Amino acid sequence: MRMYDIIMKKRNGGVLSKDEIHFMIDGYVKGEIPDYQMSAMTMAIYFQGMNDEETTELTLAMAASGDQMDLSGIAGVKVDKHSTGGVGDKTTLVLAPIVAACGGRVAKMSGRGLGHTGGTLDKLESIPGLSIAVEPERFVRTVNEIGLCVAGQTGNLVPADKKLYALRDVTATVDSLPLIASSIMSKKLASGSDAIVLDVKTGSGAFMKTTEDSIGLAQKMVAIGTLAGRKVVALITDMDTPLGHYVGNALEVQEAVATLKGQGPEDLTDVCLTLAANMMELSGLGGYEQCLAMAKQSIADGSAFEKLCAMVEAQGGDARVLKDPALFGQAKFTGELRAPAAGYVQHIDTEGCGIAAAMLGAGREKKEDDIDMLAGLYLAKKEGDRVEAGEILALLYTCEEEKLDGARERLAACYRIGEEKPASLPLILAKVTTDRVERYDV
Amino acid sequence: MRMYDIIMKKRNGGVLSKDEIHFMIDGYVKGEIPDYQMSAMTMAIYFQGMNDEETTELTLAMAASGDQMDLSGIAGVKVDKHSTGGVGDKTTLVLAPIVAACGGRVAKMSGRGLGHTGGTLDKLESIPGLSIAVEPERFVRTVNEIGLCVAGQTGNLVPADKKLYALRDVTATVDSLPLIASSIMSKKLASGSDAIVLDVKTGSGAFMKTTEDSIGLAQKMVAIGTLAGRKVVALITDMDTPLGHYVGNALEVQEAVATLKGQGPEDLTDVCLTLAANMMELSGLGGYEQCLAMAKQSIADGSAFEKLCAMVEAQGGDARVLKDPALFGQAKFTGELRAPAAGYVQHIDTEGCGIAAAMLGAGREKKEDDIDMLAGLYLAKKEGDRVEAGEILALLYTCEEEKLDGARERLAACYRIGEEKPASLPLILAKVTTDRVERYDV
Repeated sequence: MRMYDIIMKKRNGGVLSKDEIHFMIDGYVKGEIPDYQMSAMTMAIYFQGMNDEETTELTLAMAASGDQMDLSGIAGVKVDKHSTGGVGDKTTLVLAPIVAACGGRVAKMSGRGLGHTGGTLDKLESIPGLSIAVEPERFVRTVNEIGLCVAGQTGNLVPADKKLYALRDVTATVDSLPLIASSIMSKKLASGSDAIVLDVKTGSGAFMKTTEDSIGLAQKMVAIGTLAGRKVVALITDMDTPLGHYVGNALEVQEAVATLKGQGPEDLTDVCLTLAANMMELSGLGGYEQCLAMAKQSIADGSAFEKLCAMVEAQGGDARVLKDPALFGQAKFTGELRAPAAGYVQHIDTEGCGIAAAMLGAGREKKEDDIDMLAGLYLAKKEGDRVEAGEILALLYTCEEEKLDGARERLAACYRIGEEKPASLPLILAKVTTDRVERYDV
Repeated sequence: MRMYDIIMKKRNGGVLSKDEIHFMIDGYVKGEIPDYQMSAMTMAIYFQGMNDEETTELTLAMAASGDQMDLSGIAGVKVDKHSTGGVGDKTTLVLAPIVAACGGRVAKMSGRGLGHTGGTLDKLESIPGLSIAVEPERFVRTVNEIGLCVAGQTGNLVPADKKLYALRDVTATVDSLPLIASSIMSKKLASGSDAIVLDVKTGSGAFMKTTEDSIGLAQKMVAIGTLAGRKVVALITDMDTPLGHYVGNALEVQEAVATLKGQGPEDLTDVCLTLAANMMELSGLGGYEQCLAMAKQSIADGSAFEKLCAMVEAQGGDARVLKDPALFGQAKFTGELRAPAAGYVQHIDTEGCGIAAAMLGAGREKKEDDIDMLAGLYLAKKEGDRVEAGEILALLYTCEEEKLDGARERLAACYRIGEEKPASLPLILAKVTTDRVERYDV
């Protein structure tokens, strides 16, 4: 078998066999297939695509390229959630405790943020003492004991994806559906959960800009997961406007805590409850409506919040900050963004908000960059809100004063204010299962 | 400027600017742009193509990537010919002397053969003493003195093409029209001639299998040459059947000599006269019909043959072998291929003949391989010929007896014999100039 022939086959629109796909991924990880052949292949895949069987084989080959988590020591159905990334997305911090409080088993491997989207691990690390480095044995024990653990990847999980993603990132082959789907799903499969709820973000702050593209990606991932023997559903959720009011690590943890206490913003609460109820339904805890009621109850009775505290303590963190958020401290400098004119907030460019937050120190440009845990944004006014000229639209937080002006300017460009009140769209746009797509936005 | 953005632009169907193309080629030759980015780019070009302006800029950037021949020391219009390669193609050895005998100036850089097609340099080296390594100064002097010189590339001519071709060869991006056209034309432009006649082979023995594909490539190359300020025409010639009766280095030199003496096969003679007359017309030596008459006269009066002898001597070769072909010697072993049944030769697979000749020692698989100068084929029967069962179809020559059986088997598979006499197609299928395509085959 020769890589040349495999590239030629895909270039000419052929369907790659299981053997060809495994030959390619194994050879690439071992360094026997050079980058220049793999990048020609990824570009060919960009143009010719891959069918569901090919994408599934690619995903399985990638998942098998390194260590795979063994969660068999955890009793019951292990459920995972994956979000394709967004700005101000603190849903994991809310829904994992809800699911655990209702009897689910959330064994979640999470990632760090890069560019304009924050990562769950970074948010967790804003809690004093908390460690995201959890050894496999302790990971399994923690989930068995308290029902949840959110940790960083350990060991050599999916090296094929690390290598392939780095290559795609410099060869303009990131935005190919089968490559995105296999990258995400290979990590989910290697992470070992039985059931997976995918949260595919759509809109200006997300990777997928339209609902149609998001549904396409969701269908691909649901098909892969199902062919690989897992239970999978995907929700298409709105990321055309930031979720909640806060962007930034410690700020988002505080907003998640408020949400678990029943005092969170409506949009964030709704998305978290929907995702959590889907995770619970996949875990076999009941029908959807029943699960949703249980999820709401776990907020009302404080059991979900208690689960977050238990998880933080199990991972070495100081849960007192959750009970008294003042203990997080405050960023040294605060800036204000005021409305230039009266009107309605018609749109907030979500990606721009992420960039402004990163400029304040909340995100990193390069892997090595340090994060200012207290930096970020408070978006006082959101889409549909009425503002008067000179009224505060947003606050900016940072520990480096000189960063305020640039970030304020960037954030100002994100707000569009006009005469008309914008029509409001549902937050959950669609649900994708193996055999159907339900749309809520049309 | 970043290579990433240029790949993305081409991937999305954009038109690359002159600056982007030069940035890309310069950076690639300098090693600043890695192979893995360039192979993603060549695959993107395979799918999105390039317009004539882009292809011309690519060609000019490649031509400028290394040394460029300075032929300004040669008086008059310098004319070059390029063939896209075929089996048994000895036209250069015939037409260059004809053009020189008629007052043209042929300053030709030639290449070696690889795979199933033989190279002109290899054929010339079958002449004892002849050297294809001619220093630029002597090259110019020889053309001034006798009107022609056929030499190997000297110096660092078009390093961008060498590097890019090697990459395309292992990433399944060879057969892209703009990449083929720019590869060929960059070498022609760097070789410095004012006028270029392109011989685009079509059919089973050629790179381009259909007349339409060949016309497409020809139009691209004519457009590039014209935009670059050269005079260019292209002829589409048949390579669905081998040209002449001989395949193999010394064997082809002998057939070329016979053709220059007026005793060559009709197909080879016609193609050479047509190409030569086009070269002469482009050189300003007269109208086409007038040039054709002059070309025929140069064969009839022996002046063309004298030019070949003069060239061989100027390059240190022993011209006595041209006058007495017996001096070439003969291959030690001869094999016969006999007709399995009576009928008409309906088709000869040209590529297969090239492979059979290479199996006998006439070609090389790898650059380093040695060539058996006396090895090759004599195709006694060609398309349209009537044969009886057991009659000789072809003879095989080699200096290694054990190679005969395999090559005979391969050659046997090339002949298709049947009841019907096949319709004969013209040898020259079309002529492509800047503003029109004349077809002779419809």
